[in-house]
Amino acid sequence: MTKEKDALMVLSGGMDSTTMLYDHADSIALAVTFHYGSNHNEREAVCARYHCERLGIELIEIDLAFMGRHFSSALLNGADAIPEGHYADSNMKATVVPFRNGIMLAVAAGLAESRGLQAVMLANHAGDHSIYPDCRPGFVTTMGAAIAAGTYEHIELRAPYTGMTKGEIASRGKALGIDYSKTYSCYKGAEKHCGRCATCVERREALAEAGITDNTPYED
Amino acid sequence: MTKEKDALMVLSGGMDSTTMLYDHADSIALAVTFHYGSNHNEREAVCARYHCERLGIELIEIDLAFMGRHFSSALLNGADAIPEGHYADSNMKATVVPFRNGIMLAVAAGLAESRGLQAVMLANHAGDHSIYPDCRPGFVTTMGAAIAAGTYEHIELRAPYTGMTKGEIASRGKALGIDYSKTYSCYKGAEKHCGRCATCVERREALAEAGITDNTPYED
Repeated sequence: MTKEKDALMVLSGGMDSTTMLYDHADSIALAVTFHYGSNHNEREAVCARYHCERLGIELIEIDLAFMGRHFSSALLNGADAIPEGHYADSNMKATVVPFRNGIMLAVAAGLAESRGLQAVMLANHAGDHSIYPDCRPGFVTTMGAAIAAGTYEHIELRAPYTGMTKGEIASRGKALGIDYSKTYSCYKGAEKHCGRCATCVERREALAEAGITDNTPYED
Repeated sequence: MTKEKDALMVLSGGMDSTTMLYDHADSIALAVTFHYGSNHNEREAVCARYHCERLGIELIEIDLAFMGRHFSSALLNGADAIPEGHYADSNMKATVVPFRNGIMLAVAAGLAESRGLQAVMLANHAGDHSIYPDCRPGFVTTMGAAIAAGTYEHIELRAPYTGMTKGEIASRGKALGIDYSKTYSCYKGAEKHCGRCATCVERREALAEAGITDNTPYED
């Protein structure tokens, strides 16, 4: 019996959402990626296109250029504004794009309802991201309730990686045979990963933890 | 003592949000209006600009053009697609723009956090709008919880008209001296209100209920 494809997935092209795309390809009818005005984001989108084409999943790209114009975030201000170090460092708070997951999920919910789909999927996960309030389990639960209440068909928010660490996600990707050199993480957004910003540090730790040979070219 | 202006308000330029703008002008630091690709919406925006300028409140206009391209709704398909009659009629379901309030509130929350504001305000109200799931009290409550959970400063969603009918809102506007001929409602989006679509019917009933002489020029 073939599983019905009933979900729209928010796909960045980073490690986590790419893993979920392969992991749940049998239920994903449509993926959506957002352009919100950072180099990091544009390099991720190249990866999102590559994996959707490979899996035969339709990808919609949505322009949220107003975020670059009106929102405050170091992530939207170019490479020099990105702090180096670990997510736990307090200076990483500067990289928050306010309520980004809320905005992406809200658009995804409207798009899912327009297409007659039953669910939206997000690849949030456990770990250092507690610095980002819109990545925490309490946000995912309440946003899921708002999406269910605000749509005719009570669209469901699925976030199956909420309790998993990035290392556990990488282990799952290893089993799925994912080539992580075809994902992008670095907040600095250069062609080559810097290797020193919090997203690079986290990426390297997760790949090492999963026992994956890391073929990503790093500056450092 | 001057009340601190700590809120961002979602303003369409229709009767309800215009009334709230005057009613709560002492707490509104910033208003935001959205362009999502309908004539109706563009005519509302003209009114939003007029009232913000009059009250000295900054207005940000945000382009959500992707909704016109990717979302299904009669409201986004031109005047001929708009049904006539009352909101209670089942054909009005065609005018739903999926999760529109969710999307506008999510963007408003991110913008409020970027500006260091404490609250977002929405002029949803009681009445026939139960056909729109993202206008119901259950949505407003859960979306408020998601915004509080997903922002650093636990931004609050204020919806002080949730329990009021449109007639009661018009009565409040009468006391505030609002000129409702400078608000726009018609879903058909022509220069002159059609007088027959559900938004026009509701507008006329509310103004009559409040004992306001209706100076709006109607086609019908």
